[in-house]
Amino acid sequence: MITGKNYIGNQLKASGSITHKTINPKLNIENSTPFFEATTNEIEEAVQLASSAFKSYRKVSGERRAEFLNAIADEILALDTELIEAYMSESGLPEGRAIGERGRTIFQLRSFADLVSNEDWRENTVDTAIPDRAPLPKEDLRKTLIPLGPVVVFAASNFPLAFSTAGGDTASALASGCPVIVKAHAMHSGTAELVASAIIKAAEKTGMPNGVFSNIMGRGRTVGAALVKHSKVKAVGFTGSIAGGRALFDLAAQRDEPIPVFAEMGSVNPVIVTPDAISARSEQLSTTYAGSITLGTGQFCTNPGLLLTVDGENTKTFINDLATKTIAIDPQCMLHPNIKDGFVKNGADVTAQNGVELIGKIEGDIAANYAASQITSVSGTDFLANPKMHQEVFGPFSLVVRSKDEDQLLEIINGLEGQLTGTIIAEDNDNINMENLVDALQDRVGRIIFNGVPTGVEVCPSMQHGGPYPASTDSRFTAVGTDSIKRWVRPFSYQSFPNGLLPKGLKH
Amino acid sequence: MITGKNYIGNQLKASGSITHKTINPKLNIENSTPFFEATTNEIEEAVQLASSAFKSYRKVSGERRAEFLNAIADEILALDTELIEAYMSESGLPEGRAIGERGRTIFQLRSFADLVSNEDWRENTVDTAIPDRAPLPKEDLRKTLIPLGPVVVFAASNFPLAFSTAGGDTASALASGCPVIVKAHAMHSGTAELVASAIIKAAEKTGMPNGVFSNIMGRGRTVGAALVKHSKVKAVGFTGSIAGGRALFDLAAQRDEPIPVFAEMGSVNPVIVTPDAISARSEQLSTTYAGSITLGTGQFCTNPGLLLTVDGENTKTFINDLATKTIAIDPQCMLHPNIKDGFVKNGADVTAQNGVELIGKIEGDIAANYAASQITSVSGTDFLANPKMHQEVFGPFSLVVRSKDEDQLLEIINGLEGQLTGTIIAEDNDNINMENLVDALQDRVGRIIFNGVPTGVEVCPSMQHGGPYPASTDSRFTAVGTDSIKRWVRPFSYQSFPNGLLPKGLKH
Repeated sequence: MITGKNYIGNQLKASGSITHKTINPKLNIENSTPFFEATTNEIEEAVQLASSAFKSYRKVSGERRAEFLNAIADEILALDTELIEAYMSESGLPEGRAIGERGRTIFQLRSFADLVSNEDWRENTVDTAIPDRAPLPKEDLRKTLIPLGPVVVFAASNFPLAFSTAGGDTASALASGCPVIVKAHAMHSGTAELVASAIIKAAEKTGMPNGVFSNIMGRGRTVGAALVKHSKVKAVGFTGSIAGGRALFDLAAQRDEPIPVFAEMGSVNPVIVTPDAISARSEQLSTTYAGSITLGTGQFCTNPGLLLTVDGENTKTFINDLATKTIAIDPQCMLHPNIKDGFVKNGADVTAQNGVELIGKIEGDIAANYAASQITSVSGTDFLANPKMHQEVFGPFSLVVRSKDEDQLLEIINGLEGQLTGTIIAEDNDNINMENLVDALQDRVGRIIFNGVPTGVEVCPSMQHGGPYPASTDSRFTAVGTDSIKRWVRPFSYQSFPNGLLPKGLKH
Repeated sequence: MITGKNYIGNQLKASGSITHKTINPKLNIENSTPFFEATTNEIEEAVQLASSAFKSYRKVSGERRAEFLNAIADEILALDTELIEAYMSESGLPEGRAIGERGRTIFQLRSFADLVSNEDWRENTVDTAIPDRAPLPKEDLRKTLIPLGPVVVFAASNFPLAFSTAGGDTASALASGCPVIVKAHAMHSGTAELVASAIIKAAEKTGMPNGVFSNIMGRGRTVGAALVKHSKVKAVGFTGSIAGGRALFDLAAQRDEPIPVFAEMGSVNPVIVTPDAISARSEQLSTTYAGSITLGTGQFCTNPGLLLTVDGENTKTFINDLATKTIAIDPQCMLHPNIKDGFVKNGADVTAQNGVELIGKIEGDIAANYAASQITSVSGTDFLANPKMHQEVFGPFSLVVRSKDEDQLLEIINGLEGQLTGTIIAEDNDNINMENLVDALQDRVGRIIFNGVPTGVEVCPSMQHGGPYPASTDSRFTAVGTDSIKRWVRPFSYQSFPNGLLPKGLKH
């Protein structure tokens, strides 16, 4: 049941007076439950509980943390249709997506349970003593990874389950031994509370300390800022806009004790389509990319917002085909009215720039909060002259750049900001200088895809989801996949330690 | 030969007019060579060269980078007595230390050469495709580590070789594939230039691109700030004071594109000596610690500046013995007059605090720039009441805190700032609650030592040299040992890549 209250550790609390409601974007009406913004006292209590829970939770065995994570997965499944309905009513996303995303969330939780059920993930190393080494003896040294402390996770607007309350950030942090305080996304507070209730149930059933998890609500930045500035908070995870992520990064960097912020932010995910690829399979490519651009109403962080081509007769046909096919896909609902407003405004901004052409247009009225997909095009020279066009338009929007030649294509890639992904669409024996292309792209992205689409982020050890700023605030870590646990730990060495005091996995 | 000029890539340049000289602290006179501060143009040129060198250097094979690192080691050895004499004349440190530190520097270079001579260090992972997976096929994903780009290294004052021009930061960054620009420490500019000449010779002999290394000089903060703020610099390494490291961290965090700063800063390296240990072996402990406190004139980042005991009759005897033995060791020269001034001032600051007692005192005059070792003592209650006493006094100084009981001892540990190391001196069947002690200490340090001394930092895979802020700006990385290479790299994924385009080590 959705109560509208915060989970301060195991307790539902709502002593404040500021409330907000979520919105059903499909119906364009407010949902009924008022959600209570956490008070300063409630925030303080959640952090103190987390800090005190850390003392015992960091010593809970991997097997028991795995039990906890698996119990969270079970409890989320037990929420059944109540969760799916809340998800749909707060996101405008269809049932299939809700069920799929729940599956991903469950899979992530169970993957981290598997990961920490033994000690292999800790990268343990042992250097044994050499007592007779000259000129000085070598001491016994053993290194492992230990958790940082309480972590604050900001839920994403575009993944109410998989990157939110019990999403990848929370699952990886809890797996590592860090308590988690989630700042729920205001626009899916009900979904958040339901998932939080599942986590709390799981914590109680598996005997985890009170404070290992809290769910804090609030609109605006006050609550989040208070959490990030609290001296007992030791790291932050965030998925969202560049402005939001940078604001948190700045707050964290300005603390007396700076803490790491892992913000996964904007990306236009450039896709390079070579002239040879267009000559060989323009039809197939335009179909595939019309699908990728509109997938999930274009609301994926890996949405292909920028297609880089070399100009030519075939290129124009490709662009026109792409536009025709993209527009032909039925408009879909966006996550909430603010997202729709941003999409319209930012799309219009780019389209208003010198040389940008809107290719085709959906005719007739579009329902409130539904998005009219847009394919735009510009010459490479105009694109290079105007950094405004590099900006992400969050939604089903793509700008196709027509470079005059291969050199200009490389110049454009070199001038891009950091990106989560880069994609190369090319033929087996493509005439383009592939080495130059890969080198240029590698410098700007975290993952490079060959003849595929950037959408679809596999949860596996080899996934890198993160890239040079502003794709992420810290390109040295991934937000997806089992390696994302590395964000919440630090190496720790034991020197000349008695066997009895060494942790499991480091004993002689 | 020492020319006083900067290495801007392979070229010696000195177009500026600001100069400084180094000081022979033992003789308390200036050395003769004037060193030219790099001009804005020279800094710009060094960064542009590094950025352009990165394009080819990052693709140089591991075997060839290993050749380069080994050649640097060879060329440093070839500098022979010229280097040892410059080192001694600029640091006041004795010949044995100079030779020892050169050995450590060579060892570090060769360790990183070994590390990167194959691809194992890249933590490569492979997830092969599952084309028939339902509901969606799994794509082939392969992950590796790639270098970040040009790195700026700030040389340490206390290790003119091992943490300076060709020290651990430079060796690990060059090993990873990042070009390096060193900001030389003003007080050992001659030593720096000699080592820089060895690196440049090695780069030329092994065919590395011009710009893979530069050595920039200057006094004050202007030159360093310009380097850290430059958009083409991608990471920073620093060893020194909290004020200096934090200033660089702040500059880097305020950039349009924030970059990581690995600053290894202050630490008082608390040593807990249990009552049982004092009862059992007070004599041996006071001898060992008098040696550790005065080692290298107390100018090690792991110097034991804080001894935590529980009060009692044996404790007083131990403290008096420790003071007597420490004072009995001949005063040694400090690195330069500023360090000596800081030592005197900061030592006096702590000694002037309420309840702090100076135990014994060296009688008679001390030569200029030589340090009079100091052992001070204070009650746990007075220590807790006054954060001023937590500060590091860089030099042969230690504050012995007498807690009233075990609880107060734990309270003191919990209230400490982050530290590089913590040490426990205890008996095999000590009556102290060891679990509580280890837990409290682990939360505050990066390395914990049992029945040893914190001084002596082994270069090996299991070493963690770094701890919670302000010991380091980023506790998730080590500044010593082969894992320090991880500071300069980021993970990178290849999805569905043709075999021919995959790097060595990721091919099918």
